[in-house]
Amino acid sequence: MKLKPAPKEKLKLIRALSLKKNRVAHKLFLIEGAKSVKELLNSQFDISFLLSTQTFLDQNAALLNKCPFPLFMAKVSDIERSGSLKTNNSAIAVAKIPENKPLAPNKSEYILALDDVRDPGNLGAIIRIADWYGITKLILSKNCADPYNPKTIIASMGSFTRVSFHQTNLFKYLEKSACQKIGATMEGQSIHKIKIATPAIIALGNESNGLSKLVLDSVNKTVSIPRFGHAESLNVAMAAAVICDNLKRS
Amino acid sequence: MKLKPAPKEKLKLIRALSLKKNRVAHKLFLIEGAKSVKELLNSQFDISFLLSTQTFLDQNAALLNKCPFPLFMAKVSDIERSGSLKTNNSAIAVAKIPENKPLAPNKSEYILALDDVRDPGNLGAIIRIADWYGITKLILSKNCADPYNPKTIIASMGSFTRVSFHQTNLFKYLEKSACQKIGATMEGQSIHKIKIATPAIIALGNESNGLSKLVLDSVNKTVSIPRFGHAESLNVAMAAAVICDNLKRS
Repeated sequence: MKLKPAPKEKLKLIRALSLKKNRVAHKLFLIEGAKSVKELLNSQFDISFLLSTQTFLDQNAALLNKCPFPLFMAKVSDIERSGSLKTNNSAIAVAKIPENKPLAPNKSEYILALDDVRDPGNLGAIIRIADWYGITKLILSKNCADPYNPKTIIASMGSFTRVSFHQTNLFKYLEKSACQKIGATMEGQSIHKIKIATPAIIALGNESNGLSKLVLDSVNKTVSIPRFGHAESLNVAMAAAVICDNLKRS
Repeated sequence: MKLKPAPKEKLKLIRALSLKKNRVAHKLFLIEGAKSVKELLNSQFDISFLLSTQTFLDQNAALLNKCPFPLFMAKVSDIERSGSLKTNNSAIAVAKIPENKPLAPNKSEYILALDDVRDPGNLGAIIRIADWYGITKLILSKNCADPYNPKTIIASMGSFTRVSFHQTNLFKYLEKSACQKIGATMEGQSIHKIKIATPAIIALGNESNGLSKLVLDSVNKTVSIPRFGHAESLNVAMAAAVICDNLKRS
C-alpha cells in the first residue's frame, strides 16, 4: 500500500485536539498508539482519518487495507510532535466524539457514576477497570475530566471502545433513577459483607473530597472498602477496581 | 519560631536527589508535600533537614517545635524549583535511606514481591495499597523502580513510612523462602475461589510482560483475577489492590 504524506492541516488539527474547546468545536478526539488504534479499527467508532508510520502499516495491512476513511503516511517525529504520547512509533487516529446519550442500567447490570473525578489518568484507569469487569456504562458528573481527553483515552488502553459515557448533572440523574443507588464512602457498610443486587448504580467521588453532599443525599446506601492497615485512603481508581471485584464475585 | 533561610547548598542537594546515583551516593531521599512530610515527622525515619514555608510552619508548629534536625525557611518558588512536585506550598524534607535489610513474612503475614515493576508511580501506588491492607513488607527485584524515587514517595501518600522494602535478586530470594509462594498471572486459579494461608509471598510482575520465567518457575501456585469483560489486562497497581482485597477478606 502506498500512502500520501499527512497534509500540514491534519497535523495542525491533531495538535489542536489536545484542548477541550477544540474537541468540542470539531466534535473529534485523538486515539494514539498501536494498541488503542487497533482497538479503534475493530470498533464502531466513526473514524475521520488516520496517520500511520510505515511500520504500523506493514504490521496491520489487513486491518488498514479496506479503510473507508483517509489514511496518511507520517514520520514518527511528526506523530510524536503532534500528539500527546511521548513515544509513538505507530499511529494516531482522529474519530468522531459519540453523541452524549442518556444511559441507564438494564436489569442485570451494574453501572458506575463518577462524581467530580478530575484526573484524566484516573478516569482512563476506571474505564479500563469497568471494561475488565464487564461494566459498559459510565455516568460522569459535569465537573469530571473529559472522557475524550487524550490522557484519558491513552490510560483506558483501548477500553474506551467498549464503555459508553454519559456526562450530565449527576445529582439530577440519580434523583430520577428508580434503581438502587450506592455511594462509595469511608464510613459505609463493608463491601465484603453485603451483596448488591442488579440493577444498581455505584457512585465514586472526587480524589480529595469523595462524594459531594448532593450525591451523598441521593444514594440509598453507602459502602466502604475495609481497611486493615493505616493508609488514609485509596486512590479512586484502586477503589473502583476493588469495588467492581466485590460486585462481580458470585 | 524564627528560621534561617535555606542555604544554597541545601537547595542544590535537593535538586541532586532527583537522580538515583546521587541518592545512592548520599544515602538520602526526598519527601515532598504537607501530607508526606507530616507522616515523616511522625515516623522513625532519620531526618537530615527540612525546608518549610511560613504557612507550613504556622500550621505545624507543635510538630516542628522540638525537631532535633536543622529546619530552614524557604519560599514556595524555591521549594517548587528544587523538588519534583509541580505545586508544593508546604515543605520538603531530606531523610536517610534505611538499610536494605532482608525481610521475611512472619506466621500471620502476607508479603508482596514485585518483579520488574518499572514505573515509579505504580510502585508508589502499590506501597499505598499494601499499607491500606496492613501489608508492611515489600520485596523488590533489582530491576524494579527505586522505592526512593521522588515520584514513588509522592505516589505512596505517606505509606512509605509504614512499609519496609528489601531490594534483592527476587529469584534467589524466592528459592530460599520456605513459605508458600504465589504468582499473579493471566492464567492462574481464580482469586475468588481459593483461600491463601499465611505466611505467603505474592509475586506481581512487570507492567507489560508480567512475571519473568525464573520467578514463575519458583512459585508454588499461580492465581488470576477473574475477567468479566474485554479489557486485555489490568494495571499492576489495580491488580495489587484486587489481590490484597481478596487475601484479606475473611
